[in-house]
Amino acid sequence: MSGDPVARRRLRLWLRLLRLTRETEAELRARMREAGTTLPRFDVMAALARAPDGMGMGELSASLKVSGGNVTPLVDRLEAEGLVERVAVAGDRRRSLARLTEAGAARFRALAARHAGWIDEMFGEIGEAEVDAALAALAKAPKRTTAEEPAA
Amino acid sequence: MSGDPVARRRLRLWLRLLRLTRETEAELRARMREAGTTLPRFDVMAALARAPDGMGMGELSASLKVSGGNVTPLVDRLEAEGLVERVAVAGDRRRSLARLTEAGAARFRALAARHAGWIDEMFGEIGEAEVDAALAALAKAPKRTTAEEPAA
Repeated sequence: MSGDPVARRRLRLWLRLLRLTRETEAELRARMREAGTTLPRFDVMAALARAPDGMGMGELSASLKVSGGNVTPLVDRLEAEGLVERVAVAGDRRRSLARLTEAGAARFRALAARHAGWIDEMFGEIGEAEVDAALAALAKAPKRTTAEEPAA
Repeated sequence: MSGDPVARRRLRLWLRLLRLTRETEAELRARMREAGTTLPRFDVMAALARAPDGMGMGELSASLKVSGGNVTPLVDRLEAEGLVERVAVAGDRRRSLARLTEAGAARFRALAARHAGWIDEMFGEIGEAEVDAALAALAKAPKRTTAEEPAA
């Protein structure tokens, strides 16, 4: 570890971010279960809500990196519950896109409102000026020097 | 979503944290590969470096939540490479603890120094005062209201 105190505090900030993100995700996971769903299902619905024309499985999977792995079973279950529908791609009979049904969009809006409330509660001790200071600082990282741009 | 602008900015902060953590982990993963190792291996070594007397597999697994799943194959490989050793637990023939060998501790120190340098570079645009402001703000979250305390 560098003897430079700024470098050491940047490392402390990274370890803090990592822990805070993990703890917040664990708490969100517990609350989503209490709300009768799961965090990966919510993440899938959130991604689909941003793509009203639908998303292919590859695109959906790339946008969800961390929830990771195989999104197809999640989409299958959402489809069986009438929250997602698969629509044909014109000119390509083998491909289909998944998109939220009206019921799925309504369910997502209700969950998103609860999710926003939970975050407001979990982050509620961070005052307005501090939120802005943290946003301003964190907008500057990470500075990437490798060629590859993460897709998430 | 709440109409309250502070609540909306707290949500924006959380989404920023999530994306920053994922991007930084993706970058660290790429750099660890370039350094001839992997992020999960580094995480295992970092956990063992904090436990000089050794750790059981359950304890190690709990401390690594996100890298997740089964740490045993990682520890087996580190052991095969002479970086980790398993030591018997007095009075319990069925249990053993994993700990870093001297070579493992030296390898970890070298990697940790590189890791700290990468973080300093990736977070290098965040100035000293901003690092402290972000640390102060983020120390206040998450406020947990459920009984369960995440182990990580």
